Amino acid sequence: MIVEITIFDHPIDPRAPLPPEIVGRAGAVAEFTGLIRAEENGRLIGALDYEAYQPMAEHTMRALAEDLGARHPCLFLRVVHRIGTVPVGEAAIHIIAASAHRAAALGLVADFMDRLKQDVPIWKIRALAPNRQPLPAAP
Amino acid sequence: MIVEITIFDHPIDPRAPLPPEIVGRAGAVAEFTGLIRAEENGRLIGALDYEAYQPMAEHTMRALAEDLGARHPCLFLRVVHRIGTVPVGEAAIHIIAASAHRAAALGLVADFMDRLKQDVPIWKIRALAPNRQPLPAAP
Repeated sequence: MIVEITIFDHPIDPRAPLPPEIVGRAGAVAEFTGLIRAEENGRLIGALDYEAYQPMAEHTMRALAEDLGARHPCLFLRVVHRIGTVPVGEAAIHIIAASAHRAAALGLVADFMDRLKQDVPIWKIRALAPNRQPLPAAP
Repeated sequence: MIVEITIFDHPIDPRAPLPPEIVGRAGAVAEFTGLIRAEENGRLIGALDYEAYQPMAEHTMRALAEDLGARHPCLFLRVVHRIGTVPVGEAAIHIIAASAHRAAALGLVADFMDRLKQDVPIWKIRALAPNRQPLPAAP
């Protein structure tokens, strides 16, 4: 399985092409995009700030890909996580998996998202109001 | 839930934007793309021909969206199925679902694909060789 893991602080392009070596072999592409919603803990927000312990987060995501890829055999997995300030309506994460048949790609994406939330050191550190001022801690 | 169902005979654009009314409300976007593989029943192919009983296929997909949307509450579902000749590496189907939280969008896409194969009158009618001649029936 070709694995690409990226953590960076600029907008995610979910339209990056698949690697050419899997074209004709991949029959199924599953994707998940996590977008910032305008409400967080019942309050209107304008953005969320994310922070990562980056080397550890990348290492953990590679280990997760290997672990889950054994259960869901795929040709390709790309995970891109944005950190820093992510405005409402924009993507904080995009995952794409490709496999010959659909169960593996759908299973890998769903399981990766579950494990990401549990295991990977990337956190929402702050909500910003629509005017981009930090909101006080949620009540 | 906003539902868009389309069956047509030209290339699918999976990059069509989400409806503006869900931006800020959708936190999760799940997608599935079914691509033509270069091998079908052990033989190299160049394309597959799809045929639909179109009014019935559209009706069945709308009923499926309603049925599955009750179990997986989403804001939006778009299903685009291509018919006619679909070359290797191109998409025969693209499904995209958006919801506030990720379980609903991922569940709707996975369940819709399962039911589509069972219930919707769209068929692979013929495999074409890489030179686009019909292949004889599989042995």
